[in-house]
Order: sequence, then C-alpha cells, then structure tokens
Amino acid sequence: MDIVKEQVHEAARRARAAATSLATAPRAAKDAALLAAADALVAATDDLLDANALDVEMARESGTPKHVIDRLALDADRVAAFAQGLRDIAALSDPIGEIVRGSTLPNGLRIQQVRVPIGVIGMIYEGRPNVTADAAGICLKSGNAVLLRGSSSAAQSNAAIIAVMREAIAAAGLPADAIQQIPAADRSSAHHLMQARGLVDLVIPRGGAGLIQAVVDQSSVPVIETGVGNCHVYVDADADLDMALDIVLNSKTQRTSVCNAAESLLVHKAVADAFVPRVVAALRDAGVTIHGDPAFAAADPAVVPVTDEDHATEFLALEISAAVVKSLDDAVAHIRRFSSHHTEAIVTSSLGAAQQFTAGVDAAAVMINASTRFTDGAELGFGAEIGISTQKLHARGPMGLTEMTTTTYVVTGTGHTR
Amino acid sequence: MDIVKEQVHEAARRARAAATSLATAPRAAKDAALLAAADALVAATDDLLDANALDVEMARESGTPKHVIDRLALDADRVAAFAQGLRDIAALSDPIGEIVRGSTLPNGLRIQQVRVPIGVIGMIYEGRPNVTADAAGICLKSGNAVLLRGSSSAAQSNAAIIAVMREAIAAAGLPADAIQQIPAADRSSAHHLMQARGLVDLVIPRGGAGLIQAVVDQSSVPVIETGVGNCHVYVDADADLDMALDIVLNSKTQRTSVCNAAESLLVHKAVADAFVPRVVAALRDAGVTIHGDPAFAAADPAVVPVTDEDHATEFLALEISAAVVKSLDDAVAHIRRFSSHHTEAIVTSSLGAAQQFTAGVDAAAVMINASTRFTDGAELGFGAEIGISTQKLHARGPMGLTEMTTTTYVVTGTGHTR
Repeated sequence: MDIVKEQVHEAARRARAAATSLATAPRAAKDAALLAAADALVAATDDLLDANALDVEMARESGTPKHVIDRLALDADRVAAFAQGLRDIAALSDPIGEIVRGSTLPNGLRIQQVRVPIGVIGMIYEGRPNVTADAAGICLKSGNAVLLRGSSSAAQSNAAIIAVMREAIAAAGLPADAIQQIPAADRSSAHHLMQARGLVDLVIPRGGAGLIQAVVDQSSVPVIETGVGNCHVYVDADADLDMALDIVLNSKTQRTSVCNAAESLLVHKAVADAFVPRVVAALRDAGVTIHGDPAFAAADPAVVPVTDEDHATEFLALEISAAVVKSLDDAVAHIRRFSSHHTEAIVTSSLGAAQQFTAGVDAAAVMINASTRFTDGAELGFGAEIGISTQKLHARGPMGLTEMTTTTYVVTGTGHTR
Repeated sequence: MDIVKEQVHEAARRARAAATSLATAPRAAKDAALLAAADALVAATDDLLDANALDVEMARESGTPKHVIDRLALDADRVAAFAQGLRDIAALSDPIGEIVRGSTLPNGLRIQQVRVPIGVIGMIYEGRPNVTADAAGICLKSGNAVLLRGSSSAAQSNAAIIAVMREAIAAAGLPADAIQQIPAADRSSAHHLMQARGLVDLVIPRGGAGLIQAVVDQSSVPVIETGVGNCHVYVDADADLDMALDIVLNSKTQRTSVCNAAESLLVHKAVADAFVPRVVAALRDAGVTIHGDPAFAAADPAVVPVTDEDHATEFLALEISAAVVKSLDDAVAHIRRFSSHHTEAIVTSSLGAAQQFTAGVDAAAVMINASTRFTDGAELGFGAEIGISTQKLHARGPMGLTEMTTTTYVVTGTGHTR
C-alpha cells in the first residue's frame, strides 16, 4: 500500500464524516466558528509569522524569484486581512437550505429543490497562504469539508494557519476534520487527491495555467477550471475614445498579475488613425510593451511585431498584444480564436454592436464600457470567491458560496405510486 | 492522421459553427424547426421502419437477446411517440436569455447573469433509437449543437432519424449541422469524441453502468453521469404498513428496467415482525426474487441469502435485496455505503424521521411516502429530460432544458474603471 495514497484517502474519509455533520450545522454555528477562527488567527499572529519566516527563508535559499516570495511572505497586516476575510464570509447569507424551486403537482406530490453542500472539496494551489484561510472559510460556510493541498513552499505557513483554524472551529463545536492539510512534501499527494473519485467530490485548482492544465489532465475527480484569463478589450468604430483609453489602461495596468487583466487590444479600423497613436503613447508611458501589428508598429518604433503566440499569451505583466481589425465580426472571430473564455470587453456607444459582441464572444463575463478588472466576486457584489471559473459546467465566472453547493429534490407524498 | 479522429473533429468544428448561430436563434425559429421535424418523422415513418428493419435483422442474426431487440425495434406508434416528444419540447419555455440574476451596483455598474447554451454536446448511448430524436430535440431547443454517437446496432435507424431531422430543421432555416451523427462502425469514434476537449463542451453518456463508467474513465471532456440507480426503500418504525407495501411494490415492479426502480428494501426492526412476512408474500406473488437477510429468510424458504454484492447491485429485474435494520441511523449508514446517489425513499409518519433521513442520505432525490419511480423529468413536471444526473456538479436529478445551459455575466458600465 502506498503510504501517501493511504494518507490522502484517510484524510478524505475523515473529511466525509465531518462533511456529513457540517451539512446540517445551522448558520449560527458556522458563523460563530468563522468569527472564532478570525480572532484566533489574529491572536496567533506571532506564531504564523514565525512559521512563515521558515518558508520564506527556505524560498530565499533555493533562489525563488522575488515576486514569488512577495506572495508567500506574511506580515501582521496580511494576517489581519485573512481574519477580515473570514468575518466577511460570516456576514454573507448561508446558501444551504435555500429552496431553489418548489411546487405541488396536480397529483398532490410536493416537490422542493433544496440547496445542499457538495461534500468534500480538494483545493490544489500554489504558494499563496491567503488561499488557505479563504478556501477553508468559504468551504466551511457552504457546509463543505476541504482538503487543502498547497505548495510545499508554503507548507509551514499553511500548517500553522490550518492548526489555528481547526482548533477554533472545534472549540466552536464543529468538526475539526472539516479542514485538513494534505502534505505537500511528496508530490504524489496531489495526484492521489485528484484520483480519489468517490472519496472527493470536486477538485478546484487555483494557480497558473500549468497547474490548472495538469489537474485537468490528471484528475478523475470532477474539476472546476479557474482563472486563466487571456482577456481582450475591443475598441469599436462607435467608441468614445477617451473612455476607451481609460478602459484599456485600467484593464491592462491597474494590476497585471491577475486573471482579469487585459492581455490583448483590438481596434476597429474606422478609429485606428485617431486611437492607435494615443493608446500607444499612453501604454508606453505606463511602461507597457506592445506586441503590435503593422498599424501599431507604424505609431511607435518600440512596438514589437506581434505573433499568433503573443495573441495566445496571458502575459500577467506590462505587455499587451494589439491589432487593428476590419470589422466587429473580425474582432469576434479573433477573440473566439484566442480567448480563454474569461472576460471580453467592448467599448462602444452602439447598442447593436454591444449586443452583437455579447452574442458572439463565448466568455464567462462580457464588459460593455467597463474595465475587464470588474470580473471579481467582491467587485460584482457576490462577496468572497474561491476562484473564477472559465468552464461552462456547474459554475461560470466568480464562484462564491452558492457555486459551492449542489441540490437535492425532496419529494413528499401521502403514499403516491405510479 | 487518424481518419476517424479527423471525422469526429471535423464534425465537432461544424457543430461549433452551427452552435454559434443556434445560440441566438429566437424561440419561434427553434419551435418551428421542432414541429417541422416532428411532422417530417411521421411522414417518413415507412423509411424509418425500413431502416430499422435492417438493424433488427442484423441484431437477430448476431443472436442479440430479445429484450435488447425490443428496445431497438420501431413501429409506427413509436415513431409517432418520437414526434410527440418533439412537439412537447416545442411547447416548453425557452431557457435561453433568461436573466438568472441581475442588479445595479452602488457604483452604477449594471450586472446581468444571462442563461446561454453550453455549445457542443456529445451524446454517447446504447441501442435505443428514441434517444436520438429526444436528445436532438432537447439540444436544439436549448440552443446546443449535438454529436450523436449511438450504438452500431442502431446505426441505420439513427441515420434515418437524423437525416429526416436535419432536412426538416434546415428547411425551417436553422443549421442542419446542429444535429450530426458520429459513425458508430468504428469503436474509436466514441473515444475521439470523449477526448475532443476544447471542441466538445460536454459529454453525456446514457446507458448501462458499464458504458457510463467507461465514459467517466476515458473522457477528458467534462462528463455528466446519468442514470445508475441502486435505489432504496426504507420502511421506518413509524410507517403506515399498507402504504409501505404499496410503495415497495410500485417502486420495485411497476417497471424494472429503469434507473428509478427500487433495488433494495430496508425495514426497521420495530415493524419487522408485522411487515416482513407481508412484503415477502407480496413480492413473491409479483414474481420478485428476494435476496434477504436471516429475518427475511425466516419468512419464506424461497428467499436467497443476501450478500454485500447483492446490496451493491442494480438488478434492473424482478430481484431485490432486503434487510432488517436496528435503527434509522443504521438504515442511513447502509444506504450511504451502497447508494448510487440516485433516489432514496422513506415511508414514515414521523416528521423527525423524514428530516433525519433526508439530511442523512446523499442522493439526487429523496422520496418521503412516495414511490422511487417519481424521479423522472416528466413526472416531476419539468418536461423532457436528457437523463438523470447522479453526480453533484452542474446538475443533479432529472436534466431538462435548463440543465443544458450555462450563463454569462453581462456587465454594463459608462466607462467604469477600478
């Protein structure tokens, strides 16, 4: 028997038992546990920072790039932010028990479709300790047990966060096994988690495109893909060009390392002469490297010739691909070819163009005269999110508490037979 | 290049193009196409029966069991039933364009979550030609293109049905490529369909447990599992025993070959003395073989000793596993161990028992004082169904038109940036 596999399966079995009890926990108990966990994290700040310091030291010694260490490193403010995140989750309404639909049939059978937890969730993610607290809180509130398989680079930090949260929720009367760490030291633990069909109900990968593709390829447990965003901004013939400039700059530069940042710019030829020189200058001033077609290259010698690979790339950096298109149809065709189905934006004052664009692209979110950066659970008013789904099944777009549930039909009769 | 693979991919590409156009087809156009297809199927009855006769003859020659041939064989009534099924689908409301939720944020951004088609659906199914017309109709109405990969045993029947439907929907102005047959002569075509991730959005297997498991194991395209039903009836200590007898008999015997038939009976020990002899006699009179525990065996020498394998078996025949349990908790534990998460029924007059059972089992549907046979889209008033999902993601229970959709967030601003 493979020891790592047995560890993962044993954790999943304990999670199932915890999930069964958590499924019927009233909202008050779950909120009390979340608030207790928030307080406990703040109280344990020194311990968390000590554990984190070990991870950061090891990362430095192994030559980890600075921006990766920046994501890994904690301070008192970040711990306070975890805690606030849990308090925000406590303040959200509880999706469990919601009657999604209900009716009484002509024969008197009463039908209710009731929202229930999914069960046991596996999270596979990279070196951001904030995901640990966030995911644990979202799963707890939605009545799910969670198996947290973070990066080995954050193992000490994650272990400390999970220990504090387990103790707090147990003290609040909920099962500690609802939150468990899957050891990351052995790479095979992630594989066994993905292969634990029947023991684990859903795997959610959160991280870069490579991680997500690996999980999709290897998992026999159902997966929700999150987060790869090759987002486009299309500036239509009928665009307000001042607005377009603001939206392009905000979508590209407000934060570059996130999935809802723009990676590609398309401009209708009717406004190319007026807009391309302006946007090239503004992007250059913002430090953005432009991979552009000849129309863009003509505006500035610093523009790099664009390739299909550039059009397909999620840069997550101050880089953008750019091209002039002959028509709205061509813009839609380009987007359909290169899209990751996350967020596509159009800037236009034409209602018909907005409708045609919305119907034509195939994305979790379409922005009309707004920055791509709004595809975000908090920005859209849904509260905490566990990720942004770019697939079509189960959930599409920001995944909040409701998306962490399934339903049961409860059918009540008085001896009904067919 | 593998020719079969290229055929499947080419069909999927044509389906994608058709799906893009179908996604924005108004309800009137889709309903007109469905009604035209219904009329065309009836008008083509002779041709369909000729094609079917070839399949049936080949099946007879190859020694196919009679009950399988019964499913395959068509007559004028069955063709009329296909047509009526399409007319019923036309009468259902159109889920596409429904606003699932919407709001205006404090900053003025307007958000709408809009129901849209999934895109390209692959159906993999066994030798029932009715699935061909049903699935094509449901996919068309929900705006999806469908790739129909039926059994080679029904290839001529399916080809004839599909040809008639394609011609009818094309004449009604919708793309014929929205309905395509994937050749079944080569077994690898199903494999290539399941592996066409990115080209096909969803695969739905419909058939026996073996087919469904094979699809789940092999598919890289997201799958919705349908239909395996190891359904239980639990007779509680507080059951009305006359009602319990009716529900057990109806659940087991009203139709045995379907997924919502009962396969297992559990009886609380408090009513075992009063109920077991009655139910054993009634099941025996109905021709049902009982695989029972000692309490059942004591009631009738014809009872066969039950094994764990029997408890795990979906008989789909006049057979049932049966046991007496010490408590409601034990009944729930037994069901959790052997359930296929389809439908579980309790017979009880106790509100507390009904609640505890509902919370404890983990099923797509829970029947309280009603036959398991009610887990069915038509019976529950949802109209046509493409299958009954026994998984938790995306859809659980009968899958109608709504379950064949996903959503897009459409966010409208006036130049909003973050």
